[in-house]
Amino acid sequence: MTTLSIAEADQSCIYIEKAKQLAQQYAIDAIERDQRGGAAYEQVNLLRESGLLKLLISTKYGGYEQPWSSALHVVRELAKSDASLAHLYGFHCINILVARWIGTPEQVEFLERGTAENNWFWGNSVNHSDRRLTGRREGEGYRIHGVKHFSSGSPGSDRLVVAWRDESDDALVHAAIATNKLGVTVHDDWDGIGQRQTGSGTVQFDDVYITADELLESKEQAGKAFATLTPILSKSVLTNVYVGSALGAIEDAKQYTIAHTRPFIASGVEKAIDDPWIKRQYGELWIQAAAAESFTDRAMQVLDRAWHRGFELTIEERGEAAVIVGAANVHAGNVALEVTSRIFEVMGARSATRSQGFDRYWRNVRTHTLHDPVEYKLRSVGDWVLTNTYPSTLYS
Amino acid sequence: MTTLSIAEADQSCIYIEKAKQLAQQYAIDAIERDQRGGAAYEQVNLLRESGLLKLLISTKYGGYEQPWSSALHVVRELAKSDASLAHLYGFHCINILVARWIGTPEQVEFLERGTAENNWFWGNSVNHSDRRLTGRREGEGYRIHGVKHFSSGSPGSDRLVVAWRDESDDALVHAAIATNKLGVTVHDDWDGIGQRQTGSGTVQFDDVYITADELLESKEQAGKAFATLTPILSKSVLTNVYVGSALGAIEDAKQYTIAHTRPFIASGVEKAIDDPWIKRQYGELWIQAAAAESFTDRAMQVLDRAWHRGFELTIEERGEAAVIVGAANVHAGNVALEVTSRIFEVMGARSATRSQGFDRYWRNVRTHTLHDPVEYKLRSVGDWVLTNTYPSTLYS
Amino acid sequence: MTTLSIAEADQSCIYIEKAKQLAQQYAIDAIERDQRGGAAYEQVNLLRESGLLKLLISTKYGGYEQPWSSALHVVRELAKSDASLAHLYGFHCINILVARWIGTPEQVEFLERGTAENNWFWGNSVNHSDRRLTGRREGEGYRIHGVKHFSSGSPGSDRLVVAWRDESDDALVHAAIATNKLGVTVHDDWDGIGQRQTGSGTVQFDDVYITADELLESKEQAGKAFATLTPILSKSVLTNVYVGSALGAIEDAKQYTIAHTRPFIASGVEKAIDDPWIKRQYGELWIQAAAAESFTDRAMQVLDRAWHRGFELTIEERGEAAVIVGAANVHAGNVALEVTSRIFEVMGARSATRSQGFDRYWRNVRTHTLHDPVEYKLRSVGDWVLTNTYPSTLYS
Amino acid sequence: MTTLSIAEADQSCIYIEKAKQLAQQYAIDAIERDQRGGAAYEQVNLLRESGLLKLLISTKYGGYEQPWSSALHVVRELAKSDASLAHLYGFHCINILVARWIGTPEQVEFLERGTAENNWFWGNSVNHSDRRLTGRREGEGYRIHGVKHFSSGSPGSDRLVVAWRDESDDALVHAAIATNKLGVTVHDDWDGIGQRQTGSGTVQFDDVYITADELLESKEQAGKAFATLTPILSKSVLTNVYVGSALGAIEDAKQYTIAHTRPFIASGVEKAIDDPWIKRQYGELWIQAAAAESFTDRAMQVLDRAWHRGFELTIEERGEAAVIVGAANVHAGNVALEVTSRIFEVMGARSATRSQGFDRYWRNVRTHTLHDPVEYKLRSVGDWVLTNTYPSTLYS
Repeated sequence: MTTLSIAEADQSCIYIEKAKQLAQQYAIDAIERDQRGGAAYEQVNLLRESGLLKLLISTKYGGYEQPWSSALHVVRELAKSDASLAHLYGFHCINILVARWIGTPEQVEFLERGTAENNWFWGNSVNHSDRRLTGRREGEGYRIHGVKHFSSGSPGSDRLVVAWRDESDDALVHAAIATNKLGVTVHDDWDGIGQRQTGSGTVQFDDVYITADELLESKEQAGKAFATLTPILSKSVLTNVYVGSALGAIEDAKQYTIAHTRPFIASGVEKAIDDPWIKRQYGELWIQAAAAESFTDRAMQVLDRAWHRGFELTIEERGEAAVIVGAANVHAGNVALEVTSRIFEVMGARSATRSQGFDRYWRNVRTHTLHDPVEYKLRSVGDWVLTNTYPSTLYS
Repeated sequence: MTTLSIAEADQSCIYIEKAKQLAQQYAIDAIERDQRGGAAYEQVNLLRESGLLKLLISTKYGGYEQPWSSALHVVRELAKSDASLAHLYGFHCINILVARWIGTPEQVEFLERGTAENNWFWGNSVNHSDRRLTGRREGEGYRIHGVKHFSSGSPGSDRLVVAWRDESDDALVHAAIATNKLGVTVHDDWDGIGQRQTGSGTVQFDDVYITADELLESKEQAGKAFATLTPILSKSVLTNVYVGSALGAIEDAKQYTIAHTRPFIASGVEKAIDDPWIKRQYGELWIQAAAAESFTDRAMQVLDRAWHRGFELTIEERGEAAVIVGAANVHAGNVALEVTSRIFEVMGARSATRSQGFDRYWRNVRTHTLHDPVEYKLRSVGDWVLTNTYPSTLYS
Repeated sequence: MTTLSIAEADQSCIYIEKAKQLAQQYAIDAIERDQRGGAAYEQVNLLRESGLLKLLISTKYGGYEQPWSSALHVVRELAKSDASLAHLYGFHCINILVARWIGTPEQVEFLERGTAENNWFWGNSVNHSDRRLTGRREGEGYRIHGVKHFSSGSPGSDRLVVAWRDESDDALVHAAIATNKLGVTVHDDWDGIGQRQTGSGTVQFDDVYITADELLESKEQAGKAFATLTPILSKSVLTNVYVGSALGAIEDAKQYTIAHTRPFIASGVEKAIDDPWIKRQYGELWIQAAAAESFTDRAMQVLDRAWHRGFELTIEERGEAAVIVGAANVHAGNVALEVTSRIFEVMGARSATRSQGFDRYWRNVRTHTLHDPVEYKLRSVGDWVLTNTYPSTLYS
Repeated sequence: MTTLSIAEADQSCIYIEKAKQLAQQYAIDAIERDQRGGAAYEQVNLLRESGLLKLLISTKYGGYEQPWSSALHVVRELAKSDASLAHLYGFHCINILVARWIGTPEQVEFLERGTAENNWFWGNSVNHSDRRLTGRREGEGYRIHGVKHFSSGSPGSDRLVVAWRDESDDALVHAAIATNKLGVTVHDDWDGIGQRQTGSGTVQFDDVYITADELLESKEQAGKAFATLTPILSKSVLTNVYVGSALGAIEDAKQYTIAHTRPFIASGVEKAIDDPWIKRQYGELWIQAAAAESFTDRAMQVLDRAWHRGFELTIEERGEAAVIVGAANVHAGNVALEVTSRIFEVMGARSATRSQGFDRYWRNVRTHTLHDPVEYKLRSVGDWVLTNTYPSTLYS
């Protein structure tokens, strides 16, 4: 892992540029796909073709080894037109890295190299609060059975990170498997009010045998702060989905206001954009979104520094990252909720139709901001302010 | 018209009771109907059977001659489970009364008696900003042609209030017609993100001949303050839809929280309703909604007094009603937007599914609150605060 | 106790009228007195002369026996120009009534008659969380010693309600005494950032002997819901101070805007009140304040009904009053905080001077809204929403 | 002018360190000085001794030639305990630079060198909307007469930037003069509710003769974007006063909560900082302040880039800086207003005393945020969002 040199910064721009192109392609039928829901096979293929799936993979295994901030900027750009694909991409980036913490060096090499060479797209089936997937040791591997909901990215994925409870001691066990493994059935039954193409539905496992190679149970890094970054990365992805959604909603609304919004009869202006209150509202919306973007950028800088430290990361450094990422997550979520609800006010009554789909921004953000309660993130931040205590590594 | 005596107050309770029963029936398939959209024929039939369609009609013509606050309470109750039906009912009440201002006494009698006897359900096709419906005098009547959007309540209606522009002088002309009149085609093409069964789509008029009997162009009451109440009544209906939506959303969320919400892992409580922050959030939501309800009640008292004055109503009395109704409208709209968006926070991630349909509350309120810009209502109220000027009778 | 008949309602208007006159007199030097702080002897004398001190006293003892809503309307009117005097008046009304719950009928008669005949002004020295005042039984009375802070209304008062801890069993004991009793020293040392003339400083008791006549320890009404109304009455007083402060601040700001505010150079208008955003802001401020006023009125109606029930009051009826009063208290406090801070925005930079004293509205409300934490009131309301549980009678 | 090299960045830390030391010294009697108001002679002397007065002066004239972000960080640090001194310092930095735009190279050298050598402290008397100071040409100089309010920093200053209207053509004329010049009387009559030691009162000019050397009327740079940066710099200073005030208020409140706040009786905790809602509130307050800080940092980066461009600065580059600085200004102002008002809620009723002075944070921010109307800044930002138009150089 390296820091971002000037040369890399330039290179990073290439990825952002690529993300912007994808976002434009996604925009073409984003409204229709939002209504339809289901899996986004074609759009995931575009991700595969883009090369962005290997953005964080080590150069020695064929990846681009970019800092997390690059991946998160990609998430943000994608979210401007399609928050589901942004989500899928962000969690793909996390899923591919899990082996670094609980896998052997050989597994890391196999999985990163495989992803770099084949552009594997990763989903997961790990939601801890759904305890219906269980397993028992059998030979060197595990036999697992049951179902798990909130399995984002599972439809159309090449690889899955899976987690289940051991039937004997309730311990959580992980594996990285091929999605098309025998006995694995991805039910495309996600029914969210938003984030409709994240495929966050159920995966069914019918007595699936997990081989020793697939099991991620290396203890080598256990107890190290670096091995507990998942909640921070997850919150970072969501945060950038919020920021992208807010900025995308404003841009989208702006095009509508310019092209279609009629000024109020008593306004005395000919075009809506000449009405001072329309200007003020856009000022308010943009200022909120831009502040959230700036705060998120700050959090991402801290995250990059933490990430760059690798297994040298101390618990204090991890704690600082957890606080600022949690803080930015709450802030951006609140801003995105308000912005995506208020955009209608500067577009007018005729903008609120299904076919125009502006409500998907709010539905996406509203769905996503429920991932974990804001209340507990606020308390964690406040606890740190008051007593310099760091948030629990379990969920922060 | 009479004031509400004690006996009538008791009777009024009967109507509210009836509205509550309807709301329960509507609730059964409200989620499904929200997804489906289209016309609500069956639910409108229930309204016909309830007798509530004649709530405001004069007793001498067979109605119940209740004050507007009773009709608006019905609107509020219906909105608790079905804001579309609440809207349809509220605007029906306005539509049937239009003849009092621009119709002859004979027309008033014919239309009120007809409604009382046959439980006619009224829609309209009057949206002034859609200028595509025009007509020209022909004999004693008019020949009209064109289309008009935002024709709420038109599908399944028995009668329609229609407005068009005279081709010669651009004057606005009104009529009350049977919806099944030759040449009238109701296109059930409303595609809102919310209020999905208000049928607020297009009505097409193919060279429809409007007879003299149907024309509402009596000048007898022209210039009287009482004849300009439509915008105030319209805002009152919307205000009560907001209040009912907010209260209904809280009640609906509460049932979910009690039955389904899981406490956060770090909460230390077994049931979500025992988590102090869940309590606090419900406290916040309810306080906001209850304040909006109280403010709306105050506005409705002023409206009742104004209505009771009939054609004696002065422009000052009308102005006072316009200010307080506009104020309550803005307040309740803002509260309902926030409440309907925030309810998810006290229900959790699993509540945000299409099949559970909690998002319809926000989509309904968001759609409805775009009816006219909040900005101009705020300015009107502020102008009155600063200079005691009353809002324009054209749109306030 | 009687309900308010029409005749009384008219009479009630007399009291409100009187309150408005007092508010005008208080306004003359309210800014100067806010800076000076200390006791408001002269203004309390005006209260004595007004007759309002006996507003709630039974007619049989020479009072006016008005409902609480009348007293609270007086509080609201006074708060429009002087929130300290409003506070003093409101708590006087509570103090004089305490004997009804823990005094004998003879004590009630003596104290109410004495107040009606002599226009006694009542303060208190009862703050439970200050435990420095203690006493021990001596003969039929008590010998008390120590100090107590937050003794609102003590300077210049004729009578004091006092509470102390019994040294032997820590029990809370009350008495009603003459303020000029030997050994009682009122230290005019209140130093709040707002409510600067409430005299909420320290009272010192140097081995003061409390006679049996003064002791309020009748158990006759113990356990009755009616005897636990103090927290509800206290919150009602504060709520009306908030509402009056918000409305008074808007009125005061309005006069300044009309007389002094210069329009912004780019506004294109000659007078600030013609600037649409100034109008909008006044609209926003007034709508908030008027909504809080309406919600408070609703709470006061519930309180009047509860009060009218007297010792027949059930715990459920008390609970309903506690919920709605707590809810209105939180709502009005939040509104008043925002309104009193934002008024400067519609007046401009030159309004923010000490000599103009507009900041006293915010300082008053900010001081007052800290009386008890909003958080716990919100939880109480939410608990009632979710489980129909009533707030604790100890502090709600 | 140079960019900030690594070495300079280290050096910059020296200045911030120095600012923190000053802030600690100011904190000692900040509460007392807030009550007293008047000039802060001693504190200005500490500024002189610190060397910070020459932070922006060219190295060739003996200054440190730091970027604006360094000066603004100093402003922010000072504002954490004393927003008046922060204001004085920030505007000193602007005042000393004015000659670069409207002075001759000789004047720039004289004034910068003089300031570097003598640690001159600069105030101003330039408020454009106060038109009472006028002058007429006399010889090579001007004779000026009249008074001007809002002359921040004038008491105790060594040098003043002065602006007046030419009596013949109403043109605005500037000069840089010694404050102790004959005929100049600084009236220490500033009476703000906050920012009480900014000395923003009246300066009186009794037929003061302004020599040719003192007149700043070089036209060399006229029309260049760089010569119009004053409003952007002014807004940047205020923005950092807001950010520092918010952060300082939180830190100050935190110390109080830890040391003094009693938990609510029903809280079940022994220390207030263990109460989850206290934590949550601190989390909310800090997140808001930290977001504002981040957004301000972003604006300062844009400002540094613009400043570094010098007279090469294009109108587009200036416009971008104006937008982001205006945006950050509005955002930080709103955040600071809310934070400084809400801190009391996490400290409790006993914190709201004059002697503890926590209200000065809100009074400072409230006073400062009235400098120019938020409304017009919001419109400017919105106009840029919608049409890419840049704000007027006159006041943005």
